Amino acid sequence: MLNVDISNIWCSVSLPTLLESEEEIANAHSALTDAPGADFLAWLDGDLQPEAAQIAEAAGRIGEMAQVLVVVGNDSAVLGARAVLELLRGRRHNLRPGLQVLFTGSDFSTQAWHGLSELLEGRDFCVQVVGRHGDGLPEAVATRAVRWLLERRYGTEKARERVFVATDPTRGPLREIAAAEGYAAFPLPRTLAGHASALAPAALLAPAAAGVDVGRVLAGAAAARPLLELRTFDNPAWLYAAGRTILARRGKRAEYFCPQEPDAEALARWWQQLFGGRAVLAGDGLLPAVARLPADWQQMAALFADGANPLMATFLRFQPPAQKVPVEMDWKNFDNLNCLEGYTLDYLQDQALLGAIQAAADGGVPSLVMDCGPLAEETAGELLYFFELTSCLCAGMLGRDVYEAEAPAAWAAHMDRQLGRNAD
Amino acid sequence: MLNVDISNIWCSVSLPTLLESEEEIANAHSALTDAPGADFLAWLDGDLQPEAAQIAEAAGRIGEMAQVLVVVGNDSAVLGARAVLELLRGRRHNLRPGLQVLFTGSDFSTQAWHGLSELLEGRDFCVQVVGRHGDGLPEAVATRAVRWLLERRYGTEKARERVFVATDPTRGPLREIAAAEGYAAFPLPRTLAGHASALAPAALLAPAAAGVDVGRVLAGAAAARPLLELRTFDNPAWLYAAGRTILARRGKRAEYFCPQEPDAEALARWWQQLFGGRAVLAGDGLLPAVARLPADWQQMAALFADGANPLMATFLRFQPPAQKVPVEMDWKNFDNLNCLEGYTLDYLQDQALLGAIQAAADGGVPSLVMDCGPLAEETAGELLYFFELTSCLCAGMLGRDVYEAEAPAAWAAHMDRQLGRNAD
Repeated sequence: MLNVDISNIWCSVSLPTLLESEEEIANAHSALTDAPGADFLAWLDGDLQPEAAQIAEAAGRIGEMAQVLVVVGNDSAVLGARAVLELLRGRRHNLRPGLQVLFTGSDFSTQAWHGLSELLEGRDFCVQVVGRHGDGLPEAVATRAVRWLLERRYGTEKARERVFVATDPTRGPLREIAAAEGYAAFPLPRTLAGHASALAPAALLAPAAAGVDVGRVLAGAAAARPLLELRTFDNPAWLYAAGRTILARRGKRAEYFCPQEPDAEALARWWQQLFGGRAVLAGDGLLPAVARLPADWQQMAALFADGANPLMATFLRFQPPAQKVPVEMDWKNFDNLNCLEGYTLDYLQDQALLGAIQAAADGGVPSLVMDCGPLAEETAGELLYFFELTSCLCAGMLGRDVYEAEAPAAWAAHMDRQLGRNAD
Repeated sequence: MLNVDISNIWCSVSLPTLLESEEEIANAHSALTDAPGADFLAWLDGDLQPEAAQIAEAAGRIGEMAQVLVVVGNDSAVLGARAVLELLRGRRHNLRPGLQVLFTGSDFSTQAWHGLSELLEGRDFCVQVVGRHGDGLPEAVATRAVRWLLERRYGTEKARERVFVATDPTRGPLREIAAAEGYAAFPLPRTLAGHASALAPAALLAPAAAGVDVGRVLAGAAAARPLLELRTFDNPAWLYAAGRTILARRGKRAEYFCPQEPDAEALARWWQQLFGGRAVLAGDGLLPAVARLPADWQQMAALFADGANPLMATFLRFQPPAQKVPVEMDWKNFDNLNCLEGYTLDYLQDQALLGAIQAAADGGVPSLVMDCGPLAEETAGELLYFFELTSCLCAGMLGRDVYEAEAPAAWAAHMDRQLGRNAD
């Protein structure tokens, strides 16, 4: 189970200040879960289990038909699935045997398109399109291009069975296309904001096709729910949300999110989009930044030392795999490491983290430390749930309606005007 | 040739202010190039051409012996090579036919180590170790582990010919190991700071082994030199360095670096480390952040709208490949994109960029726009040179000695104490 250690924020925050925020966070929590008709958390009650079975079945078909799955969607729609995939199959999952998963739909790059087409040359592929609306321009253009490629390869009829759509259950262009073409279509709950879609079974089709047990991911989220539903500071979500919000009010301008595992980088990207989009919008948030430890330490240290950029840090620790890796003996010892002989990598990792926390504290940088448990399916589900919930709590504490529709991006309006395009 | 457009900073900076910085930047430039005995730029004079030939030869041998090249080094030592590799072979270069390049040495992750070992299972590999010193703990531990793996696989004798070292020409643990074991060893100029090592032929061994013409990369940097040596504001390096430094002094707290190409993400990471480590240290710098356009636009828009986080943005534009990709006609038109029929991806990309610049300006965010030329070897060389130079100019304008040795990371000192280890 997740644990959040806030003992390193007491340099900046007093216990009474934390306790004063209790009512505020309780209200934000109630506003979230008591909204009438919200299916925000509905899937956790189990009513989407039939869908989960359908997903597993679709994943099996993809595995039989294809060597590659192309996932089309903007970052906010696919980063959650990507986080799960990389946490559980590794950031180099595509180099391992089995189905490859390639993401597209978040750019207009000609070079990237040529690169993707080249990788699909002579290999069987299927397509998943993810999007609550499906009308953002980069993903819409990519969807059309990928469908075109698919139909030229397999013919219009055969192509149909290779497309899988996850979108709004009743409306939107993606839903129309799926209905008209007879694509397999799965619902994304309508009140889930883009990022939260990661918690819907439909969005997890890609990890499922790559061999991840999506049922266990969802079970992990469900198992975490009682803890994360607590309306006290025993709830780690409360500690995280209140901790970072109070620190923001104390003048911290950026939160460095530091997972200790390279395989958690996609999770960090997802976190960044989630908190960047939702909590920052209220004008009172922290700039979400990602650092990889210990690689990015020099940079972080420079920023820590820079009083003009007051920071906070959040460190993520995972339980190491059972099979340990010790530093080996080398009688030549040119690298002077024999003093570490027998120490295991995970021990060194822990010491580096302790060093980082201590160095942050020395620099006046308060930090939160999250213990996330083992790198396993259940943990991935818990983490998606945890950050989705905490981003809502933070937005709520900032007085923002978390169900509010996101405004279309300003660049898109400019672009539409330029193209003489009527987006209606 | 590189071009920097500063026309979108005039909302924040007046022409006289820019011109006033002329003497300051001229001094910073002189301090950099006139330092006695500096071999900082020496390799561009051509005296490392023999080394470039050696590198090509070594790259050829690696190609014959191995399917995988494991590159061991901390991020600051290898990110430049990685930037070149991804710009020119694509961020998915390892999925293409040919030599795979896997990076390690910047973490203590047990899971990542198991993942790497698994990928090397049953496949022939060589090892490159890059590091000016080679005594940072993560890369030293990884170096020992990888050598151990190699020796168990091939035996001590056969393993020797599979290790390639790029390090200080005369001293340091890596140089000692190379001499004692008889590894092929190439010099990294001593006065090059870690990141700048990307400009040394030795650091480019991995891209060379993967098929990049390193001679052209170096030639691109050399060809850019006359322009970047100009001591006037016709020099794009002056425009960039002065522009961002003045904006920092005007209260901007973060620079969002936005390359338009997904294949330039590693370049952005390198930029981030370079400017994070060097320019920010003086306590007057900008927090370096990376955004991918248009995917990260929502987040950036939120930050732009947030007066508490005054930002600047730097947009990187590349010339698209000659082979254009048009939006295809679809008579069903469920996605409502037929109005874009015949428009090419690169045109849409340009429009999205113009929209982004306009939206930034609307939000009071000044921006610099860099035209980088085509995604080709020479451009990669130019970009490495350009940012290496501008990071030095910025540090110089902040009154910092750019040749100053970087202090060891604070976490490492804490860690050494904890381990009872004497680092000497």
